Amino acid sequence: MKVRRFPQNPIVTQHDVPPTFEGWEVMSAFNAGVIEHQDEILMLMRVAERPISTDPEVALVPIIDFADNRPALKIIEFNKGDSRYDFSDPRVIGTPDGMLLTSISHLRLARSKDGHNFTVEEKPSLWPDQPYEAYGLEDPRITKLDDTYWIVYKGVAPFAITQCLASTKDFVNWTKHGIIFPPENMDAMIFPEKVRGKYVALHRPQPKMMGAPNMWIAYSEDLIHWGEHALLLGCTAGTWEGGRLGGGAVPFMTDRGWLEIYHAATTDDRYCLGAALLDAEYPEKVIAKSPYPILEPEMDYETSGFKANVVFSCGAIVRGDTVTIYYGASDEVMAAADLSVTEILDSLKPV
Amino acid sequence: MKVRRFPQNPIVTQHDVPPTFEGWEVMSAFNAGVIEHQDEILMLMRVAERPISTDPEVALVPIIDFADNRPALKIIEFNKGDSRYDFSDPRVIGTPDGMLLTSISHLRLARSKDGHNFTVEEKPSLWPDQPYEAYGLEDPRITKLDDTYWIVYKGVAPFAITQCLASTKDFVNWTKHGIIFPPENMDAMIFPEKVRGKYVALHRPQPKMMGAPNMWIAYSEDLIHWGEHALLLGCTAGTWEGGRLGGGAVPFMTDRGWLEIYHAATTDDRYCLGAALLDAEYPEKVIAKSPYPILEPEMDYETSGFKANVVFSCGAIVRGDTVTIYYGASDEVMAAADLSVTEILDSLKPV
Repeated sequence: MKVRRFPQNPIVTQHDVPPTFEGWEVMSAFNAGVIEHQDEILMLMRVAERPISTDPEVALVPIIDFADNRPALKIIEFNKGDSRYDFSDPRVIGTPDGMLLTSISHLRLARSKDGHNFTVEEKPSLWPDQPYEAYGLEDPRITKLDDTYWIVYKGVAPFAITQCLASTKDFVNWTKHGIIFPPENMDAMIFPEKVRGKYVALHRPQPKMMGAPNMWIAYSEDLIHWGEHALLLGCTAGTWEGGRLGGGAVPFMTDRGWLEIYHAATTDDRYCLGAALLDAEYPEKVIAKSPYPILEPEMDYETSGFKANVVFSCGAIVRGDTVTIYYGASDEVMAAADLSVTEILDSLKPV
Repeated sequence: MKVRRFPQNPIVTQHDVPPTFEGWEVMSAFNAGVIEHQDEILMLMRVAERPISTDPEVALVPIIDFADNRPALKIIEFNKGDSRYDFSDPRVIGTPDGMLLTSISHLRLARSKDGHNFTVEEKPSLWPDQPYEAYGLEDPRITKLDDTYWIVYKGVAPFAITQCLASTKDFVNWTKHGIIFPPENMDAMIFPEKVRGKYVALHRPQPKMMGAPNMWIAYSEDLIHWGEHALLLGCTAGTWEGGRLGGGAVPFMTDRGWLEIYHAATTDDRYCLGAALLDAEYPEKVIAKSPYPILEPEMDYETSGFKANVVFSCGAIVRGDTVTIYYGASDEVMAAADLSVTEILDSLKPV
């Protein structure tokens, strides 16, 4: 597989993103949904940021508080010497009542004329202001249907991780439509065309007792209510996709069927990208899939960073035989690479 | 709270249920959905059974196998001396590839003219024959809408625990409609009337990373596709409902709103029943709830058995001010008790 990474990778880093508030720092800008709009390529990035702690012994946790039924930004202070709390993972603080995140994520636009050079907007596009987003919005995917762009994203809250829906026509005015996949769910995205008269989505339930974090498919007549759930593609123990597997970029149609660039991880969290070919008429049928990753962590910005050894795509742009896969690297920056659609299709093995 | 348990409790036991196959034994008959149909009270029970092992050193696990894409009953033998497997919990066998159940559950009807004396049918009503039911069907709830009875039940499979839908008009001919709530989900049930023009359901996602096993609500226009998910009622740490909380009987309308008899458990799995009053027009709004259980394990058949200290309702019958709560006791038998609806309502505390 020939992977032509962009020479200027990473194409956006946390240093390109102005923090939302004075006294805050942006930790990472990654896992962007990507779409063409008018004459631009837009990336809707997950931006994780936090208030800067001036005391090295104090950890600060930003959350959206709904105690008054209205969203209010609140910063909780934790003394790092307090043995009731677990500070071993820099991304989270373990508390007796559950897990808190050390940063809060919102969704922010970056715009480009050529798909290579991006300008990051000054302000967030989608900011957490619903109870189900109290710990942030993450990992958006964008699908255009008629004149509307539909964004599916992860809402993180103390009571649940869900998949939520928002829409826009102009990337300026946004509407939120609530939770479309109940807890615990990640990595959902809507197909860019109806299939057999219905909308289709991939999603990735995260089970506790039975089963693994696998990729599922569902149908809807109105984008709000979803059903006809079925397991689509599962982990394979002991392989590059032994730990978890879920949707990546929004699927696109090829002459052989729907092509889905998905992510998969080993049990020790090395994230790679693979591809799956789904039947054009019955996408719940997997025709073929990658025996090996089509893109895996190799470059410095992929093998080191906030969470090393992660490549994770939420969007791709197809032009002719070239698919440009935009992907988050090491949960920290955005990168991109061109691959041949035909080469990907030819590399797949029937299932 | 005056709880008038039926004097003949338990009203059905495993010994009243003929096994599905020769050489099998019924372990338990419990957690029945309940409904009035023509001049009868029907209980659709979860019946757990297993092949009898003639060798005390061999454990047998019945599953439905789909290797040939058609359901085939398969019995797997485990040598109890094999250290790769965990036999410490009699309900399950731990294997390196996941958990197997030592029994398989189907749904079986019991019929009664008086609601007290039941006759169990000879054969299963709903038997596992779909991949998402490979380990069995559990915990049904029945809702009548127009001339059709809708059954929501737990489908257990190696790859997922989901909430599934079936329907019947006559309790003889049945149709299965697939998965309506994706993994991992338990304890779903449909309201007996549309609210604001839509169907309503309770469900209980089981999260892994964030949040607790709480009761959620959802809406649908067709019973198949569900959305508008929202958290309804959550656990309260350190109380009788500190471990988990979910729907029980199908909600019924009172002059103060929807009354839901729910179940809740402590962190060490003592299951009690409580009640929640939901707004008639906006049932996503909880008006009041039980500060203490309205029914808790007290009698022998509730405090000992297959899984001791469990009372768990999937159905109730309301006549005048009396609600007859049918409930599984100790995951083994069916019992019932009469309570006053007014007494329950008066016992609730505003939330």
